[in-house]
Amino acid sequence: MTAMHRVWVMNKYTTGPLEKDNLVLQERLLPEPREGEIRVCNVYLSVDPTNLPWLSSRATYLPPMVLGEPARGFVIGVVDKSRARDWAEGDIVFGLMQWAEYCVVDPEKVIFMMKMPPAKEVSLEASICALTMLGHTAYYGMLIKGRPLPSETVLVSGAAGATGSLAGQIARLAGARVVGIAGGEAKCRTLTEEFGFDAAIDYKTGDLTRAIAGACPDGVDVFFDNVGGPTLDAALANLADEARVVICGSISAYEHHHDARAALTGDASLAGKQQAGLYPLRNGLAIFIRKATMEGMLVFDFFGSRKQKKCARHLLQWYREGKLRYRSHVLDGIEQAFPAIHLLYTGANQGKLLVRVADFVR
Amino acid sequence: MTAMHRVWVMNKYTTGPLEKDNLVLQERLLPEPREGEIRVCNVYLSVDPTNLPWLSSRATYLPPMVLGEPARGFVIGVVDKSRARDWAEGDIVFGLMQWAEYCVVDPEKVIFMMKMPPAKEVSLEASICALTMLGHTAYYGMLIKGRPLPSETVLVSGAAGATGSLAGQIARLAGARVVGIAGGEAKCRTLTEEFGFDAAIDYKTGDLTRAIAGACPDGVDVFFDNVGGPTLDAALANLADEARVVICGSISAYEHHHDARAALTGDASLAGKQQAGLYPLRNGLAIFIRKATMEGMLVFDFFGSRKQKKCARHLLQWYREGKLRYRSHVLDGIEQAFPAIHLLYTGANQGKLLVRVADFVR
Repeated sequence: MTAMHRVWVMNKYTTGPLEKDNLVLQERLLPEPREGEIRVCNVYLSVDPTNLPWLSSRATYLPPMVLGEPARGFVIGVVDKSRARDWAEGDIVFGLMQWAEYCVVDPEKVIFMMKMPPAKEVSLEASICALTMLGHTAYYGMLIKGRPLPSETVLVSGAAGATGSLAGQIARLAGARVVGIAGGEAKCRTLTEEFGFDAAIDYKTGDLTRAIAGACPDGVDVFFDNVGGPTLDAALANLADEARVVICGSISAYEHHHDARAALTGDASLAGKQQAGLYPLRNGLAIFIRKATMEGMLVFDFFGSRKQKKCARHLLQWYREGKLRYRSHVLDGIEQAFPAIHLLYTGANQGKLLVRVADFVR
Repeated sequence: MTAMHRVWVMNKYTTGPLEKDNLVLQERLLPEPREGEIRVCNVYLSVDPTNLPWLSSRATYLPPMVLGEPARGFVIGVVDKSRARDWAEGDIVFGLMQWAEYCVVDPEKVIFMMKMPPAKEVSLEASICALTMLGHTAYYGMLIKGRPLPSETVLVSGAAGATGSLAGQIARLAGARVVGIAGGEAKCRTLTEEFGFDAAIDYKTGDLTRAIAGACPDGVDVFFDNVGGPTLDAALANLADEARVVICGSISAYEHHHDARAALTGDASLAGKQQAGLYPLRNGLAIFIRKATMEGMLVFDFFGSRKQKKCARHLLQWYREGKLRYRSHVLDGIEQAFPAIHLLYTGANQGKLLVRVADFVR
């Protein structure tokens, strides 16, 4: 008998929105770890906005995926076989691996991988939602880049999202007044009632620039942006002096990643073409006028740094103290993963989007 | 009839500890403001550790005082006559002026001066204790230089003192865990019971280095130092990686200011002399080993900066919300001011040391 497992495979590049066959689900041989490698039995696949731009033939912060190879993805699972130093069967691992039932990786070579607390201490769901790259992104973006002072005003876009909700809670721990932007009344209620935001703005009702001005009468000292486009423009119009704008994501632009990257790299194929989808920022001058800073951040840049240990320690402490909450939206079955990306772009998900691919019973 | 008032006058420089006639109290003619000047009726003189090194013939961060001239001092009072734009009779003013019953100053030329909230909103005692240069020193030193993250460990020396107690409270607002060093059980109790410190260390009992290690098991992320000398050494032995050491004061060295300054400036008169009183720092290497920073700060450097407005606004807000408490130790009568400096160097004062020189009834 030959052991098999299911794998999402890179099948067709997109030049814009999701198509129905960018990834295809295939049966493949269950791989065996070689010396130095571990095999991970995945429990949850993480579905993230970044999964869409990764489908482009043009590089993101990572090289393009390779046609016919397993699709890249963030996953959490349990070590099933270990031939690597420092890793034992049963260890919980989160990393940038593959959307599959099993992954074989060399822990020394993988871009982003962390050993997580044992499942009897923190559930895998809590780990992936609060303590992995989402929590680290929120921590570095808010505390190292944004640096809110007590009583300063922090604005978060995509605030009900997986990263935004953590970023807002962390800003509250730093004593800031936190305002979140989200879509719809239900999400806004979650912000104030569940995540402790001081105020919430529903971007679907009325003028966003004016709504921010109303909710942030002293201006915005820190803007933690997951959305970009018109949302960023509205925030820029409301900056306080010496504001810090931290660009953690730009989901409004990800469908246009292919053209945006081509424009940035001077790709000749774009010459004369209208970049219809790319939103031109109108209020960039605010950075100068307000003596502000605007900075892009990528959590990978902190990986392996001295700050990582402290961040992991603090996130775990806050989670245990009930100060770091999350909402998850779990789908069952590996076949759900690729189509689920769509939910993030319509805002239909209600919390961190996960696909459960195995029952974890240990 | 000629109007007179009492003035502390610079009489004799010290080369070390306080002597009994460095300043003398004299009657002088009540000065009249000229165009552009205001006359202030002082209500409280502030007695601060810095008053001692100012008595040296060698410069501190300010030039030496001039023999026969009124002694420099921080004071709060009410504008008695105004011939200056932006100032009206009845305004409350804090500034670096003179230890006297009245001061005449040009607000454009004075080094440090702030208009304070009206007395019916905030008492002059609260203003001088929480909202003036003490509060600003604590705010800048802790939040701009120290930058504690939530759950980081902050250590404050001279923690029961006027600045230290504010610095600790501000660190708590930023979500840090705060440990204070003070002398004696009563002061330590004040730290935890009144100022909300998480823990207090009595430097008078046992080994300070070991006591800090016990109270700060993850190391010290921010050390806010008012004391210097052996206290600083003990803190350096306990730094966490990437710690920030903010030198706000160094009261243990002020009696030796005269020699210290001479040594720094290569004064020939010191050649071959033993600097017996100057404590040599033993653990300076910790700055390298811990990848830490050590930075001196002077509140004047922030005066007039964009941050000053925000600082004043936040201090006032926190005071009104009951988040910024102070203790004062008030002596009555201008004749008390000069001898009172001594109390600061024995630790006999119980709170911010003030000398009331007028009853403010408006």
